[in-house]
Amino acid sequence: MYSSPVGINKVKITDEFWAERVDTVREKVIPYQWEILNDRVADAEPSYCMHNFIAAGDLNQKKQREGDGFAEPVYTFRGFQALPDDPDAPEPDRFYGFVFQDSDFSKWIEAVGYSLMVHPDEELERIADGAIDIVCRAQAENGYLDTYYILNGMDKIFTNLRDHHELYCLGHLIEGAAAYYEGTGKDRLLKAACRFADFVCEKFGPGDRLHGYPGHEIAEMALFKLYEITGEEKYKALASYFIDERGAEPSYFNIEHKDDPGGDTTNLYYHQAHLPVRKQTEATGHAVRAVYLYSGMADMARLTGDEELKNACERLWDSIVDEKLYITGGIGGTHLGEAFSFPYDLPNDTAYSETCAAIGLVFFAHRMLRMEPDRKYSDIMELSLYNTVMAGMAIDGQSFFYVNPLEVDPTACKRDERKLHVKPVRQKWFGCACCPPNIARTTMSIARYAYTISDNETSDAMRNIAQKSCADRAAGNLLATDKTLFVHLYMSSEITLDDGAAHDPENKIFININSDIIRTSEVTVSITKPEKSSFVMAFRIPGWCRDHFSVNGTDGEEYSDSIRSGYLYIPITKSEETLRLKFEIEPVFMESADEVSENAGRVTLMRGPFVYCVEECDNGKALHELAVDTAGGIRIYNEDLSEKDDHDTSSDKADDVRIKRVFERSIRLVTGGRRVTARGEKMPGSKLYHIYEKPEETKTDIIWIPYYLWANRGEGEMRVYLANHSAL
Amino acid sequence: MYSSPVGINKVKITDEFWAERVDTVREKVIPYQWEILNDRVADAEPSYCMHNFIAAGDLNQKKQREGDGFAEPVYTFRGFQALPDDPDAPEPDRFYGFVFQDSDFSKWIEAVGYSLMVHPDEELERIADGAIDIVCRAQAENGYLDTYYILNGMDKIFTNLRDHHELYCLGHLIEGAAAYYEGTGKDRLLKAACRFADFVCEKFGPGDRLHGYPGHEIAEMALFKLYEITGEEKYKALASYFIDERGAEPSYFNIEHKDDPGGDTTNLYYHQAHLPVRKQTEATGHAVRAVYLYSGMADMARLTGDEELKNACERLWDSIVDEKLYITGGIGGTHLGEAFSFPYDLPNDTAYSETCAAIGLVFFAHRMLRMEPDRKYSDIMELSLYNTVMAGMAIDGQSFFYVNPLEVDPTACKRDERKLHVKPVRQKWFGCACCPPNIARTTMSIARYAYTISDNETSDAMRNIAQKSCADRAAGNLLATDKTLFVHLYMSSEITLDDGAAHDPENKIFININSDIIRTSEVTVSITKPEKSSFVMAFRIPGWCRDHFSVNGTDGEEYSDSIRSGYLYIPITKSEETLRLKFEIEPVFMESADEVSENAGRVTLMRGPFVYCVEECDNGKALHELAVDTAGGIRIYNEDLSEKDDHDTSSDKADDVRIKRVFERSIRLVTGGRRVTARGEKMPGSKLYHIYEKPEETKTDIIWIPYYLWANRGEGEMRVYLANHSAL
Repeated sequence: MYSSPVGINKVKITDEFWAERVDTVREKVIPYQWEILNDRVADAEPSYCMHNFIAAGDLNQKKQREGDGFAEPVYTFRGFQALPDDPDAPEPDRFYGFVFQDSDFSKWIEAVGYSLMVHPDEELERIADGAIDIVCRAQAENGYLDTYYILNGMDKIFTNLRDHHELYCLGHLIEGAAAYYEGTGKDRLLKAACRFADFVCEKFGPGDRLHGYPGHEIAEMALFKLYEITGEEKYKALASYFIDERGAEPSYFNIEHKDDPGGDTTNLYYHQAHLPVRKQTEATGHAVRAVYLYSGMADMARLTGDEELKNACERLWDSIVDEKLYITGGIGGTHLGEAFSFPYDLPNDTAYSETCAAIGLVFFAHRMLRMEPDRKYSDIMELSLYNTVMAGMAIDGQSFFYVNPLEVDPTACKRDERKLHVKPVRQKWFGCACCPPNIARTTMSIARYAYTISDNETSDAMRNIAQKSCADRAAGNLLATDKTLFVHLYMSSEITLDDGAAHDPENKIFININSDIIRTSEVTVSITKPEKSSFVMAFRIPGWCRDHFSVNGTDGEEYSDSIRSGYLYIPITKSEETLRLKFEIEPVFMESADEVSENAGRVTLMRGPFVYCVEECDNGKALHELAVDTAGGIRIYNEDLSEKDDHDTSSDKADDVRIKRVFERSIRLVTGGRRVTARGEKMPGSKLYHIYEKPEETKTDIIWIPYYLWANRGEGEMRVYLANHSAL
Repeated sequence: MYSSPVGINKVKITDEFWAERVDTVREKVIPYQWEILNDRVADAEPSYCMHNFIAAGDLNQKKQREGDGFAEPVYTFRGFQALPDDPDAPEPDRFYGFVFQDSDFSKWIEAVGYSLMVHPDEELERIADGAIDIVCRAQAENGYLDTYYILNGMDKIFTNLRDHHELYCLGHLIEGAAAYYEGTGKDRLLKAACRFADFVCEKFGPGDRLHGYPGHEIAEMALFKLYEITGEEKYKALASYFIDERGAEPSYFNIEHKDDPGGDTTNLYYHQAHLPVRKQTEATGHAVRAVYLYSGMADMARLTGDEELKNACERLWDSIVDEKLYITGGIGGTHLGEAFSFPYDLPNDTAYSETCAAIGLVFFAHRMLRMEPDRKYSDIMELSLYNTVMAGMAIDGQSFFYVNPLEVDPTACKRDERKLHVKPVRQKWFGCACCPPNIARTTMSIARYAYTISDNETSDAMRNIAQKSCADRAAGNLLATDKTLFVHLYMSSEITLDDGAAHDPENKIFININSDIIRTSEVTVSITKPEKSSFVMAFRIPGWCRDHFSVNGTDGEEYSDSIRSGYLYIPITKSEETLRLKFEIEPVFMESADEVSENAGRVTLMRGPFVYCVEECDNGKALHELAVDTAGGIRIYNEDLSEKDDHDTSSDKADDVRIKRVFERSIRLVTGGRRVTARGEKMPGSKLYHIYEKPEETKTDIIWIPYYLWANRGEGEMRVYLANHSAL
């Protein structure tokens, strides 16, 4: 059963956990990011993003003024990241930053669009409109819009699809423009994105057009979205062309680079271009690119009903989830190529597990879910969101993880070059700033992932809905009779939907969800609707409750006939209805498959969707000396933090209070365990190695915190996995 | 008490273990290596070594012919490894290979020299003399002898000490020439080495000479050796200058490279040039370079009586042995820079532990031992030799490890770029062929490390001995009254020494050592000497016996007054004497210091000096699932291999037989343990992770083999450390 996301503007998030995150993004990240885009943050690397748009706009104006007399810039490569000779006075008419720097704006405007949708803010909208003016002014007459080539010379556009990011910038521009259009109804940026997309449609495709495809995928899913918003078939055709052409022989990337020193040296696995996508069975290469591609493939499968492609998506999904996923929902086992490693190679301390890759996995999960409501997708979507994605941003909203290790020793991060990619504390900002704005846009659109409404089931009807949703500015606002509202994630929210059958503004359906899934795992759903409306609600039964749940006090077993693929389908008929769901959320020790050699003999803790970890500030140094007694119990940790930290003298009191509040709210766990200290006779001449003797053991409480909260209380060791001392 | 090595020609190695190794080097490695030097091995990378010497000789002749009309080559950098455009037809007058390619010859001639010393071979000597002619013909008129610059242009000699290896080539040339001189009495190459050294003496030193020092150390210890052979003070002065100048501010390497793109970017730690050597306290940087430097420092401390420098050597020794040593005697925790990592960072699977670095540690240990007979040095010397150095060469003598990991999964070696430096099987040869010839020269001179004779204790007298030893062609052949013969390593040997007091060819001292240290740890020493001779023998009491030993059946405790720093001093007075030493050699489980997080909860096995490991071919796949019961016993494995392998159909029967024989001779161990296979409910949607349940366990015998023998029976997993299932 296909479904579409509920419009963000139809959902008010009131959830303690998510509202805090959404507020942090709105209050902290979006304004901070705007300063970054304009190079106004003293201790962060300059972005040059708005600088480039302004410079490109100036160049366009000059061209118009000078007409035929205008001397077009002739392209010269100035590096993947072009930096000014004098950082204090960059030349005003040159491009600076990474080749994909334009996308920083697009990610920002996307978060702004979502924010305005639920939280109108005149000042922010004024700033955003101004930024859009600057961006639109940079667009070339033919619709092309990538300041890297506009400033460096358009004679070479689309000549390095492998390494340069024109189509990536197009993709992000579409995503940003769509969100701003949905959030404000203003279509200036959307039209600019369409013009750029139109230009790309002219240039790419079968016949005598270019047969290439994006080096860094995202245009695929963005173009499908643009098709769903505008109903323009050519965008769907272009996205489909990109997907079908990828991996065709001879390799476009190799042809493109045949004159490079070294010739055909493209790592086609890195680009997921080693095989036609329908033949791919193993998730490979750059993890973000991979899941962005797979998301586009899933969109295409849904929009075209292509079963072969859907099967390929399912195989790639399984490859990730069965063999290449961290327990935290992160992906990318190796920093070399920021990539998937081989099956079951999931090192904890050198993990890449990029925040953006986890976000991409959420995108992929969400798209699979839209084709087929199955908790195998939503369980992972939740896992990634609550652990890796949320770990990517500090409680203060001003520092970020790009890499999300499962084991950290700050000394190693500083002294071991192989771990220089692993940071023991979150960083202010990155020159390659993909993760922070990606967290922002995902957080601000969380409602999309939580709720979807079923489409009609034929693809004609689906297209009609897509086209209608354009007029409505967002898909999935109508909860017509015979439709199903899916609840994929549990968060307190107020949902207001139109009864599609009637289209009477008075005929509203109100759904109030009160969820305390973090603490008690109780969810109360109150529905108020017109008498004649009738629909179905489908509630995900989270995999972590192992089907131990109740509905209005009745044991879940009684509902077994109403469950399909982990979703409980309940018809809503009365005009006032209340459902009380309760899922078992006992903390459990988790182990990895035998094949994961890294975790042999080790366990971690989960409670509901949250993976736990241990930190030095709770458990002292040398976390590798801790071993858990899995036969013992797990307690909730009740200590009040507020007093403990009172003697701290920090400069930023507000952030201190925020951190304390979040920690007080979080469930911390305690397990019994031992600190094992080796003793034994030292081998003469070598204290490093000595004859084994049964070690001294000190019984100790081990304090576990949710993984997403780690590194909010200073620098220190962290581990997700500990040895299991009752294992053997 | 200072001591000097016994001349190699005074010792006949009859030991089962070492004779096999020595024979393999003589019969297999030396001839193979000569083919390599001449680019005659089809499936190995060309060396270009002799090609370069021939080309340089031709150039010299041309120069002589043409006189003033000769056009000197003008230097152009052609890469750290210059390769011909057409590998099948390299131009005859150009330099190819790595900048240090000359040293391949020097390492070969060194092994040849040692070999001829104990095993005369007319044909080999004829080949070697011919090679020396070619090399001497390449020497420039001024004495300079590095074909890289002779061919590429001598206008730039000594302008890139940091990265190019002129002084490294000088060092190896001296070592090779000295060995050939000692082995044959022929001094043609030694004179050439002296001429090159004289030229370097003119160019380097205080005042208006160059203030630089080697980028890759070895010249230091080589020049001290040349000083000890020739008595020429200037060689000692030059070596001392190199050592004293290293690390001085401003950095010579930074000055040398100030015009490079990026300027002063030298990693001074990599080159041990971050501080004056006397101020260094932590072993850092490229591990081979480091221990070669420390060896030179130890030589200088001994030859000059410099206590401050000796203290620095001791600190650096402790830094390695207390914090940076693998249990296998290997060093170098990281492949980045082939370097020491930070203290206690000793990863098993990404270890570098280069064979050459272990050899360098043997050099360092040997030099410390010559200053101070203390088993803290000889224990480690033995550990490195019997494990990492010996692991470096296959039983067949035709394949070699450069990197010596403590844990191998062949899949990871092939699919994980971070482990591409780790090979699951030994390689035929390397373009950068330092390790195989280094193993050859060390094996052929093993007697040096086993036995030393005390010098007089004043430094004047010591110099006299050094000078006298020049006439005698090798130090330490005289076992005069009041001197001590040290036995550092146990191997069956026949030692024949002159009674220095009489200098009468009839007055020989014969010492026959019969050692079965691998199997029974019994050593029988029979001494026959002139009546009037009187000397002392000092036997190392290996650390691994934990002072459990006996002498002629008497418990070692009775000898406690005769023990200093782990050496048992026994006066030899009678003309016929027999000593029977027995050291306890029980296999033991070994653990690492708490700080080594990699090995928390893990153990390995040692028996005497041998570290053990487990291999897939004995124990099946997934070695990480094995856990040892340390509370259980350790058995000797008695299975006869010859039958088991009979059905193997290998092309090389001789090697098969050799491998079988060595395995039959080796002590293999068996421990009880368990194979642990996780079971437990699978988490829905994810087979990778599931709730922990007490795992299924299968009791199993675990077969351990000596580490040095691993990877002689095909490709497979290997681990030195296994989980300890009675630890907790």
